[in-house]
Amino acid sequence: MTTSRPLPTAVVLLSGGLDSCVTLAMAIEQGFQPAALHVNYGQRTQDRELQAFHDICDHYGIDRRTNRLVVDISHLAAIGGSSLTDQRLDVPNSGVVADHIPNTYVPFRNANILAIGTSWAEVIGASALFIGAVQEDSSGYPDCREEFFHAFQAVITAGTKPGTTIVIQSPVIHHTKADIVQEGLRLAAPLHHTWSCYQASESACGTCDSCQLRLRGFAMAGEVDPIPYASPCA
Amino acid sequence: MTTSRPLPTAVVLLSGGLDSCVTLAMAIEQGFQPAALHVNYGQRTQDRELQAFHDICDHYGIDRRTNRLVVDISHLAAIGGSSLTDQRLDVPNSGVVADHIPNTYVPFRNANILAIGTSWAEVIGASALFIGAVQEDSSGYPDCREEFFHAFQAVITAGTKPGTTIVIQSPVIHHTKADIVQEGLRLAAPLHHTWSCYQASESACGTCDSCQLRLRGFAMAGEVDPIPYASPCA
Repeated sequence: MTTSRPLPTAVVLLSGGLDSCVTLAMAIEQGFQPAALHVNYGQRTQDRELQAFHDICDHYGIDRRTNRLVVDISHLAAIGGSSLTDQRLDVPNSGVVADHIPNTYVPFRNANILAIGTSWAEVIGASALFIGAVQEDSSGYPDCREEFFHAFQAVITAGTKPGTTIVIQSPVIHHTKADIVQEGLRLAAPLHHTWSCYQASESACGTCDSCQLRLRGFAMAGEVDPIPYASPCA
Repeated sequence: MTTSRPLPTAVVLLSGGLDSCVTLAMAIEQGFQPAALHVNYGQRTQDRELQAFHDICDHYGIDRRTNRLVVDISHLAAIGGSSLTDQRLDVPNSGVVADHIPNTYVPFRNANILAIGTSWAEVIGASALFIGAVQEDSSGYPDCREEFFHAFQAVITAGTKPGTTIVIQSPVIHHTKADIVQEGLRLAAPLHHTWSCYQASESACGTCDSCQLRLRGFAMAGEVDPIPYASPCA
């Protein structure tokens, strides 16, 4: 008779975008049982991102009752300061990685999300917390940099019960978008279920910074993005 | 003609308890314009604590529309793991500061609250973030220790926009409860509006750990606690 040890659990932050989907695939490849966390924060494409989250979870057979957590932190929209949550501000379509932080930055969003993920990880005994942040080839948000995650790791160590070990893993932090696309294809991740557009929910706009970064990633990987685009430029 | 410079703004985390009320009084004494943040997290005495928050804010004339923020993070109750949010667990009445972390610990709660406070501080341009955490003479929660706040300070520095300066201030961290009572009286803080009880909302129970710590603080300060208690022991 053989017994199998249960897989270690990892909380995986899953926005429903390309980066988080591939990060989930990498966590599973590493042998973790995923507990997927999704956060609504009053962003423009909230409903579409939630659908992408559930589609990706369904693809991987992640139990809806026990291993998915959807949290509402719409106070980030009430606090404001970002074009993603404030309809009065335009989402930029610069098409390039800017030399300043664009107004799509949601102040300190990732600290809010990591805090929730750590609370959940501590209660369910997860040993890792995966986040699909990308430092280069991104919009330059301060809370997407490796330095930020190192600092947050120290907060987890100091602020959880003795004996708790939760390690932040950001396996695509130094990947280009093209690397991420190729890694996703290698792992047969359901990229057709992902959603990255900042402003549209039917067909991706193809023009916002997030769409342009994504499209460039597919182009540089020599692959075709499987999701629908509205823009003739895409 | 004289012009007065506007006061610097501080976000003050105001649960409505004794420690946060005195911390608010200290922030005001230091010359800050307070922006008061209150968090409902599905705790047993949520409504009573919210009332205490507004009573204290009213006392100090803190503008309800512009300078108060009430946030719901009831996902901490959904995540569970604490007797403060899970009615199936008993709130302990040990009456002593335990040598282990009691089940009233809400996993990583203060990181969640500090993250919200930092988001707000970054958007409104506040230069300080006050929290009334107490390290000694407390229940030993890991996220109430100075080491935790030092670590979180590094996260704020790394994770906010360049040029942002938000300093965590925890002025009562090394105070005893008696010190806090005396400081509150010196500053004429509205201690009669505060609420500390973990489990009752009409008259404080007088028996939970929080009531006992508070009552001992008043006793050691040689003062009478102005709030009503149900227990004949109080």
